[in-house]
Amino acid sequence: MKIYGDSISGNCLKVKWVADSLGLSYDWIETDVLRGQSRTPEYMAMNPAGQVPAVILDDGRPLAQSNAIILHLAEGSALIPADAYERARMLEWMFWEQYSREPYVAVARFQVAYLGKAVADLEPRIMERGKSALQRLEDGLDGRAFLAGPAVSLADVALVAYTRVAHEGGFDLADYPKVVAWVARVEKALNIPA
Amino acid sequence: MKIYGDSISGNCLKVKWVADSLGLSYDWIETDVLRGQSRTPEYMAMNPAGQVPAVILDDGRPLAQSNAIILHLAEGSALIPADAYERARMLEWMFWEQYSREPYVAVARFQVAYLGKAVADLEPRIMERGKSALQRLEDGLDGRAFLAGPAVSLADVALVAYTRVAHEGGFDLADYPKVVAWVARVEKALNIPA
Repeated sequence: MKIYGDSISGNCLKVKWVADSLGLSYDWIETDVLRGQSRTPEYMAMNPAGQVPAVILDDGRPLAQSNAIILHLAEGSALIPADAYERARMLEWMFWEQYSREPYVAVARFQVAYLGKAVADLEPRIMERGKSALQRLEDGLDGRAFLAGPAVSLADVALVAYTRVAHEGGFDLADYPKVVAWVARVEKALNIPA
Repeated sequence: MKIYGDSISGNCLKVKWVADSLGLSYDWIETDVLRGQSRTPEYMAMNPAGQVPAVILDDGRPLAQSNAIILHLAEGSALIPADAYERARMLEWMFWEQYSREPYVAVARFQVAYLGKAVADLEPRIMERGKSALQRLEDGLDGRAFLAGPAVSLADVALVAYTRVAHEGGFDLADYPKVVAWVARVEKALNIPA
């Protein structure tokens, strides 16, 4: 398998962590978004959305969208709860992440850490919605070790990716103690270096 | 099952269409977002994200996020391709829809048709990205009757919801003839009144 990813992107790291956790072998092809490497004609032929990550599976077929890729790679593994309802809750978190969380927490981090914007200059809406998303996560972890089911699942993979680097976008995780403890738990379960 | 939905929301209609298509019985509880009915304390206790749709399953447990709900309801049905790769492509379209399409095509429609904004006053970025998403859909339908696999799937359900009403947000679907033909095909396959 070939993974086209940008190492600074949480969405790309999700795919790496799942592949590593499942012991899958792959070539990582570093794809620098800031230098336009996900917008070349060759890349767009593989993934017309022009986004990272994308993979070429062992049979040569392409697949894109971080959450679709990790759901495919992890099918039948312990990273997907066996119980139908827990699996549905896992998907609920994963869709929520891409719609209500990534556009704020990840975008703030990208603008601050990679485009050099000051936190004070971020759109107020981005910070406000990012904080609201972190609070939603804090509430969702009340009385739970992991987001869906009794063990680490793809919901945790999807949500931890940008949460663990949220401080780089000006968010103070100290306001969310359950989130901080959960990040450490997920990093340990997936062998992600802290 | 109880479905909490706003009839003007494509995300909510996805759930209705899938339930109808599978012959599931349910009570539809009309939930008016513009009047704040998805933000009451009672509603937030069921879905802390404060969004529609949400469902209460037959066993009394809640579930939110349109695409997570339809994946759960349709599990084991013909609306999910049996082939693992086609299933993965279905998920790729569904995640892409929520991240790269809904925030533009659906938001434009909401602002124009429900908040009374003029198309000319929409953020240029919204129209530009909406058009780019419609073009991506047009390209994805090249040589295909449906988005993933040989028959109608949840990818078509998820993508048709806001595409069929894109003109209400100022988009001209005549520029995307494959999309127009596909919308009619999906409406027919799902028995959606045109």
